[in-house]
Amino acid sequence: MTNRFDRGLETLKQYVTEEEAAKLVDYDALAITAPDLRKMIVEFAYGDIYSREGLDVKSRALVVITSVVTQGAAPQTKTHIKRGLHAGLSQREIVEALLQLIPYIGFPRVQNALLIAQEVFGE
Amino acid sequence: MTNRFDRGLETLKQYVTEEEAAKLVDYDALAITAPDLRKMIVEFAYGDIYSREGLDVKSRALVVITSVVTQGAAPQTKTHIKRGLHAGLSQREIVEALLQLIPYIGFPRVQNALLIAQEVFGE
Amino acid sequence: MTNRFDRGLETLKQYVTEEEAAKLVDYDALAITAPDLRKMIVEFAYGDIYSREGLDVKSRALVVITSVVTQGAAPQTKTHIKRGLHAGLSQREIVEALLQLIPYIGFPRVQNALLIAQEVFGE
Amino acid sequence: MTNRFDRGLETLKQYVTEEEAAKLVDYDALAITAPDLRKMIVEFAYGDIYSREGLDVKSRALVVITSVVTQGAAPQTKTHIKRGLHAGLSQREIVEALLQLIPYIGFPRVQNALLIAQEVFGE
Amino acid sequence: MTNRFDRGLETLKQYVTEEEAAKLVDYDALAITAPDLRKMIVEFAYGDIYSREGLDVKSRALVVITSVVTQGAAPQTKTHIKRGLHAGLSQREIVEALLQLIPYIGFPRVQNALLIAQEVFGE
Amino acid sequence: MTNRFDRGLETLKQYVTEEEAAKLVDYDALAITAPDLRKMIVEFAYGDIYSREGLDVKSRALVVITSVVTQGAAPQTKTHIKRGLHAGLSQREIVEALLQLIPYIGFPRVQNALLIAQEVFGE
Repeated sequence: MTNRFDRGLETLKQYVTEEEAAKLVDYDALAITAPDLRKMIVEFAYGDIYSREGLDVKSRALVVITSVVTQGAAPQTKTHIKRGLHAGLSQREIVEALLQLIPYIGFPRVQNALLIAQEVFGE
Repeated sequence: MTNRFDRGLETLKQYVTEEEAAKLVDYDALAITAPDLRKMIVEFAYGDIYSREGLDVKSRALVVITSVVTQGAAPQTKTHIKRGLHAGLSQREIVEALLQLIPYIGFPRVQNALLIAQEVFGE
Repeated sequence: MTNRFDRGLETLKQYVTEEEAAKLVDYDALAITAPDLRKMIVEFAYGDIYSREGLDVKSRALVVITSVVTQGAAPQTKTHIKRGLHAGLSQREIVEALLQLIPYIGFPRVQNALLIAQEVFGE
Repeated sequence: MTNRFDRGLETLKQYVTEEEAAKLVDYDALAITAPDLRKMIVEFAYGDIYSREGLDVKSRALVVITSVVTQGAAPQTKTHIKRGLHAGLSQREIVEALLQLIPYIGFPRVQNALLIAQEVFGE
Repeated sequence: MTNRFDRGLETLKQYVTEEEAAKLVDYDALAITAPDLRKMIVEFAYGDIYSREGLDVKSRALVVITSVVTQGAAPQTKTHIKRGLHAGLSQREIVEALLQLIPYIGFPRVQNALLIAQEVFGE
Repeated sequence: MTNRFDRGLETLKQYVTEEEAAKLVDYDALAITAPDLRKMIVEFAYGDIYSREGLDVKSRALVVITSVVTQGAAPQTKTHIKRGLHAGLSQREIVEALLQLIPYIGFPRVQNALLIAQEVFGE
């Protein structure tokens, strides 16, 4: 385990529960096919990028939610809305961020994302 | 002029200088071809959406910058980085938001956006 | 209910059955999370945009189908093919419009859309 | 020259002037690098697809304009607005089709396309 | 059956098993709605494009996998990973090609594609 | 300078001339605004990803060209066609890869990329 991995894991815990972080370390869905992917996500995405200073945790979560919704990526929309809530965004802030996207990406992708958000909020 | 237009114009002033707001009212680049577009942008985008409560001005600017960069829309990237600065985002926050996008959209669009940001910062 | 909402609802009825229009008024899947979304869709999308003059109902439906298929948005493809049929597009016109997209977006998204169209036609 | 090429060229003339059609035959910007591309565009796009029955010329032009605008492809937006006018779409119909896209792709790409349309209309 | 169709079918057999090729000829999922689509795919995609010289079979498969993954098209990702294996790409080469995309499209679409690849490899 | 940076720089030299590699080290267009970006590109993109085994240099170049063309990213298309030539791809292989994309992304983006390729080949 490198320092970048440790720093990444520490940063990740701002976005997921202890339980989920532990699960991410113990179990890798791509362990056979691409065991390096998880390492890269923790080291690069969380260790190098998310852990930077100059932008607070909630704003980083907002940026990521916005980007995956703009791309229309449904599985990531669910994941990052969950992480955004854990990072301190309120349900209201997430809903407002999604509505704010209407003039920039149109209704369809916003509507799909709001249905996902509603499902996450209900869990 | 409707109430929605007035409210939109008022909201817009949180994102542009007085001078730019006045220019937007006086001059419409699409006055001949689509005179309703400007009205819709002010009434709907600013009057109905940006003016909502529940998410602060800086976060709304961050959401919009993120979305146009994710779409790779160069002219809008320039416009909304300017508006983000006016809305109170620091140069550092904008740069960090763009770097935060690397794991989600890759280097090319982030690099293009940073070159635009640097140009805006230099003005 | 505003005039824009009334006009939107009236316009919407050119694209859906009376029954579906009534259902859209009575039931809102996002009533808890984002109750304003439906209002915006009816007021802005249908009341302000679809209800404009200068382009006939069938052509508007064709434009919308084309855009959601180009974006690869599956749920909206189904919705708007249904609305296009109600607006007067023939099955043949819809199929031809989808085939016309092949040189501009390639086979994969067209094939996905045709499978959805076939499913809608069979209902 | 195959029959498909002849049919394609004949169909193309519904979308461009005689002069432009002649120029397309005489001069190929990619003659050195990819001489087969023009042949494929004429044979496949125009000979096989545009020349099909079941959807009128104006509607095909509308579908193509919508798709390239949704993709944010600026050079093709210019080309196909020109061809749409030649195919019989009025300036008003093109403007309305672009405004109709706002609820589905947002303001930025529509605004960019309207500026291109205005430029073409002015020529 | 044209020469282009025959050539296309012959080329297709480099990417699918005899059994799958036979099935593609015998059964057309879109036989009722768009019977010409399959003909176009075989004639144009396989007969005109895939059958060209100047790029080997494995590289063509790699190009196609890369494009559909970049577009985030899940059904085509599965189809073309299968065809790539049949064309001679190793599992390792496919995994490496997907990881190579991370700096250009980000983690989400790569992760989704790797999960699909793992599923195909397991079959 | 880390080991990852050194390895990245060494790998990069398979894709650019000595002169260009030296220039990339000496001059950073984003030195003021985002000095970490270049470091990340060299360390992560080239040091961690491009330098992996299991896929040859030419195939990696092909994957990257395909992805940026599919995204319609013009500046990156130029950069990576140059790097592909340096990595050993022939002009013919690049042209064939671009034509191979027609059935998957349509003519417009392929045509734009071929014009860029032709310009690079002429230099």
